[in-house]
Amino acid sequence: MRNFDGIHPTVQIGDGVVLGEDIVIGPNTIIYDNVHIGSGSRIGANVILGEPCSGFYASSAGYENPVLMIGSGARIRAGSILYSGSTFGDGLETGHRVTIREGTSAGLNFRVGTLSDIQGDCYIGDYVRLHSNVHIGQKSKIGNFVWIFPYVVLTNDPHPPSNELVGVEVDDFAVIATMSVILPGIRIGQDALVGAGSIVNRNVEPESVVVGNPAKKVATVREIKSKKDGGAVYPWRHYFDRGMPWQGIGYDAWLANKE
Amino acid sequence: MRNFDGIHPTVQIGDGVVLGEDIVIGPNTIIYDNVHIGSGSRIGANVILGEPCSGFYASSAGYENPVLMIGSGARIRAGSILYSGSTFGDGLETGHRVTIREGTSAGLNFRVGTLSDIQGDCYIGDYVRLHSNVHIGQKSKIGNFVWIFPYVVLTNDPHPPSNELVGVEVDDFAVIATMSVILPGIRIGQDALVGAGSIVNRNVEPESVVVGNPAKKVATVREIKSKKDGGAVYPWRHYFDRGMPWQGIGYDAWLANKE
Amino acid sequence: MRNFDGIHPTVQIGDGVVLGEDIVIGPNTIIYDNVHIGSGSRIGANVILGEPCSGFYASSAGYENPVLMIGSGARIRAGSILYSGSTFGDGLETGHRVTIREGTSAGLNFRVGTLSDIQGDCYIGDYVRLHSNVHIGQKSKIGNFVWIFPYVVLTNDPHPPSNELVGVEVDDFAVIATMSVILPGIRIGQDALVGAGSIVNRNVEPESVVVGNPAKKVATVREIKSKKDGGAVYPWRHYFDRGMPWQGIGYDAWLANKE
Repeated sequence: MRNFDGIHPTVQIGDGVVLGEDIVIGPNTIIYDNVHIGSGSRIGANVILGEPCSGFYASSAGYENPVLMIGSGARIRAGSILYSGSTFGDGLETGHRVTIREGTSAGLNFRVGTLSDIQGDCYIGDYVRLHSNVHIGQKSKIGNFVWIFPYVVLTNDPHPPSNELVGVEVDDFAVIATMSVILPGIRIGQDALVGAGSIVNRNVEPESVVVGNPAKKVATVREIKSKKDGGAVYPWRHYFDRGMPWQGIGYDAWLANKE
Repeated sequence: MRNFDGIHPTVQIGDGVVLGEDIVIGPNTIIYDNVHIGSGSRIGANVILGEPCSGFYASSAGYENPVLMIGSGARIRAGSILYSGSTFGDGLETGHRVTIREGTSAGLNFRVGTLSDIQGDCYIGDYVRLHSNVHIGQKSKIGNFVWIFPYVVLTNDPHPPSNELVGVEVDDFAVIATMSVILPGIRIGQDALVGAGSIVNRNVEPESVVVGNPAKKVATVREIKSKKDGGAVYPWRHYFDRGMPWQGIGYDAWLANKE
Repeated sequence: MRNFDGIHPTVQIGDGVVLGEDIVIGPNTIIYDNVHIGSGSRIGANVILGEPCSGFYASSAGYENPVLMIGSGARIRAGSILYSGSTFGDGLETGHRVTIREGTSAGLNFRVGTLSDIQGDCYIGDYVRLHSNVHIGQKSKIGNFVWIFPYVVLTNDPHPPSNELVGVEVDDFAVIATMSVILPGIRIGQDALVGAGSIVNRNVEPESVVVGNPAKKVATVREIKSKKDGGAVYPWRHYFDRGMPWQGIGYDAWLANKE
């Protein structure tokens, strides 16, 4: 396919850039200084990698762009902007016009959807899925296998505007549904489910289901049944495996093999 | 006006692209293989048309970009991305940085605002208006003359994450106000009005007004009166005509002529 | 740093553009006719300044782009689009992919975050801070030192769709927290605080705290205490000074000097 093969002649590449083998980069993409991209990666058009941190704007004299590390097999779609000074494990996949600021550390197979905005200074585990238009405030800490759906916001300022930022913590396997807000310092427990449109101002216990404004516990996840066949659907790791390391073998077998 | 006349020399055009007459395309726009654009269209800068589907990323060998059909008189504003494999009737108008994925079928005079994100595999009728930052999940089915306002999300997964996607259905003339979420499989009836900030977890009957979290029926649309002059304002098709096919003649006269 | 020094050779510049001294403009940025940029400004990559108004699309023959005035010391980050026909005081700072339409008048030190969408025909005072993904409807009127947090929408149509737009008014020092919707014509009083996830359908009195859907008054701002040390935190101008003109001297001393 024309314009999508090898490194397009319109691509701008800075100093200190390290590219692995078999990399495709689309038209008009800009790679600033000190970006490392792993082998087999596909970068779309109009992408910016290694966007300079705010220190550059304060004084460009003597500014040195921090390293941006992107693992192998990345899929970075058109229009996304990844700042310098972050690290991504293998298998990163982004939608369009994602913004990820400096100080972000994400594990393996991180997927982040169109328009999502990660404010940096945060930790993200393995196999985390952010859908479209998710906002992750600074100081957030997200475990492994967490799912966050569109228009969810993880906040961090307990009395805005202030200097006392306190991040949200989301434990492994938790699910946060569309258009929910998690207030500063709140912890979402393992396997918990936050229903759509919830405003969460208290910690959510493991395996709890909370909904509403303010969010209240209405069930445990094991009480939720499939609308299709009435069977159990949570904890989801026992009923869903697409793209997960236990795909085709099941969570328990994978876990047993792993240990 | 400089840089906005004819096809700018920085535009990239793939193979199998079919352009009608009198088309303007702004700087840095990329048109991938097999895109058809109707006569009289205006395409802004930094637009991507025919973005490759996910099949391309899985294996670019032998990948053939599906056709993207754009009718005549389109206005596609700067920064928008339309995937290959969709069809748009005449009079398409987009804001900036819209994303529309493959498998979208939209009728005549579709208008979609800045940052809206249509996930594909969905059906959209004639004269539909999506304002800024509307999110349309896969499998949504939207009738004719539907209005959806900013930050509304049409969801599709009844117990996320799952493989059982069930789309939302929005009937003709329905209106969904700002920051509402429509839960999976819900149907919004003809002429209904969903108030701002509603979380809708039950079907909404025709001409009903629902508000709240969860949304409850509070009135019929005919009970709503203008804050300006106390007159009736709904069903809106009898009181609003800008950009509609009944502009200047009224809905009833237009309908009578049409039948 | 390569690709970020002076005016990049890929920048497109229209007619009637007036550039001050010491300006940096990144790759692929487009400046249409009649844009004025003050000295010391830094413009990122893929920015569009002076985007043509809708009159251009209606008929490009004889279209003359209105002037876009940008004061000195601006920081406009990659991917933002500012229309022609607006005016910004000194010290403008934007995140990425901001959209600001024509007829916007903003004062000194306006900061507006990534993905925010200002629909134009609105007034914004001095030292206003919009965080990421804020939507400002047409006819909004925002005072000085106002803070608006992510995913807030200021609406304007009392019975959508209609032609009777009535803007929101936000008075000096007011704070609107994440994911709140302000309904058309509502006024948010000085020093008021709208809690996260509120749907505001009544005027909010000065120094009031409102929360919920619909929003109700739950306290005055002076009753809110710091979660860290139990001290007072509002009105915030007495407890927060970062980036404010009273930084380092305190609000009262600054005010006394000023008068």
